[in-house]
Parts: sequence; structure tokens; C-alpha cells
Amino acid sequence: MNTESGFTVKPIAIVQNSRTEPTDDFWGDIISIIELHESIPVESLTGLNQFSHLEILFYFNKAEDKNISFTGYPRNNPLFPLAGIFATHKKDRPNHLGHTVAGLIRIEGRKIFVRDLDAIDGTPILDIKPVIKEFLPQIEKVSQPQWATDIMKNYWKNKQVNEVIVF
Amino acid sequence: MNTESGFTVKPIAIVQNSRTEPTDDFWGDIISIIELHESIPVESLTGLNQFSHLEILFYFNKAEDKNISFTGYPRNNPLFPLAGIFATHKKDRPNHLGHTVAGLIRIEGRKIFVRDLDAIDGTPILDIKPVIKEFLPQIEKVSQPQWATDIMKNYWKNKQVNEVIVF
Repeated sequence: MNTESGFTVKPIAIVQNSRTEPTDDFWGDIISIIELHESIPVESLTGLNQFSHLEILFYFNKAEDKNISFTGYPRNNPLFPLAGIFATHKKDRPNHLGHTVAGLIRIEGRKIFVRDLDAIDGTPILDIKPVIKEFLPQIEKVSQPQWATDIMKNYWKNKQVNEVIVF
Repeated sequence: MNTESGFTVKPIAIVQNSRTEPTDDFWGDIISIIELHESIPVESLTGLNQFSHLEILFYFNKAEDKNISFTGYPRNNPLFPLAGIFATHKKDRPNHLGHTVAGLIRIEGRKIFVRDLDAIDGTPILDIKPVIKEFLPQIEKVSQPQWATDIMKNYWKNKQVNEVIVF
């Protein structure tokens, strides 16, 4: 076990989109292109176009490297209860790993067009996996504190009408 | 952008469970303990017990390091169509990253008890995030090829009756 020295991960693709600053809300209108790194053969995408949604694992390369806060207020708002870093999706976290389910629009050669990827322009992508239904939790069994619902209010705002998620 | 040299990630916790070999099916009866690494303060879990489900990012430390196949047959079964590595969840993949939604049972100090974590004993955990409903895709909009449904037939078998996922 390489517990102390860690493991090296390398980008397999890079995000291109119109969002250049890491901000919290209004991701609903962002379309991104994920372009494979030159070291990755295009055959690695074979059959990916048969899935409607993709899991995207990425690296928050602009996140804070040092002095990570292990607790903090969601959205830095002291009206919310204090939360541990692993009870949030904050980017300034150990290992800087992000994970989002994105909607697949189309694939053109080495470029994957997606919607609802909340990663800014230039973000290194570490992995892509298809969303397989049997790995999803049953939504009616998922529970979360009120603050988690509150902070998501405007997250996907501007999402196209046919994509609005209603719970 | 550190594209060529990559990034270092370190375990923040380790999995303890009864599964010692990386096999594909029958994960439904596995209960795991995720124990925080000594470098991670317990405060990082504050409020996590208010969520029913957790996203667990882990490192396939027993996966193949060299000669990764960028295409292959799902479950190595040539009756299925050839799939690119990013169209599958195979462990022998670039960056060795795994991601699963696990059900939270309880937290005792530095130990998190979960069900439905498909990682074997000793697996290094790289991150924990709460499942927030607004990040989940609408299940009725998720589509996948038949082979993806077929390979999942026994994946969660033995799952407790009240946890069976029916689509």
C-alpha cells in the first residue's frame, strides 16, 4: 500500500467551455467540449455514444493547495450549520477531485460535447465512465439536510426547460 | 497546467470489509468500514451523518498498471459489442479511479459504516462527498445499451430485500 507517497494521476482530456472563473451558480446553460489528450487513442470512446449520461471525474487544478479547511460553512454562509469538508462538494478539498454527471450531446472524433458539466475551461479530466442505471441510488431513498437543498437553488438555473430537474 | 507530469493524490481513508479478491458480482451483502487516515481530522466528517448516501472515490490499487486495453469486451464476453475503456467501469483503466454511491449506515468516530461500496478490503479512498439530489440525473432520462443492463444482473445480488433496485 502506497499510503504515504500517494499515486500519480494524469489528465486524459481537457475541458473547453465559456466559464473561465470558478463560480458557484448558473451552470445550466454551459455546454462543454471534452477533448482527449493526444496520448489517449480515440478507440477508448467506442460505444460511449450509446449512453445518455456520463460520469466525469476531474481535477480542481485552481483549488487551494495548502491550508485546506476541514470544516466550514456551506457557501461560507454562517447561517448554515458548520460542515466537514467531506460533507460538502467544495473544491478546496484533499486531492482536489471533482465528479459530475453530465449529459452527452454528441461525440465528434476526439471531442465529446456535454451539458451540465460544472468544471471551468481548462479543467483536466481524469476519467470518463458511462452512467449505468443500476449504480444510481433510488431517488426517493435519498435524504439530505435543508442547507444542501438551499445552496442548489440557483446551481442549474438557466438550464433549458426540458432539462429542469424537479424534486 | 501540469498535463504531462500529472498530480499526486493520497488516501484519506482505507476500506475494511470481507471481500479480498476483485470479483465482479454479488456486492449486495457487503458492509464496509471506511476508516479515516491518521492525517485527516475527524472534524472533516461534521454533518455527514445527515445524508443518506455518499459518493466514494477510490483508487483501484490492484488494477493493471501497464498495457491497459483501450477497447475490450464487457466482462471479456465476445458476445457483447466491443467497448472503449471509457464506455465501461472496468478497473484496469487510466488513472485507476473508482466511484460508487454507497448507503450510509452510521458513523462512529473516525469510522464510516456503509453498504453497497464495491471496493475490496484495503482499497485506498481518495474522497468522500455527500449525495445531493440535485446532482443526480433524472432516472427516466437515462438510457444505456442492453449489454450494460445485462452485466449488472447479478451485481447487487444478495442485496437486502428493502434495498433492491427495480427499474
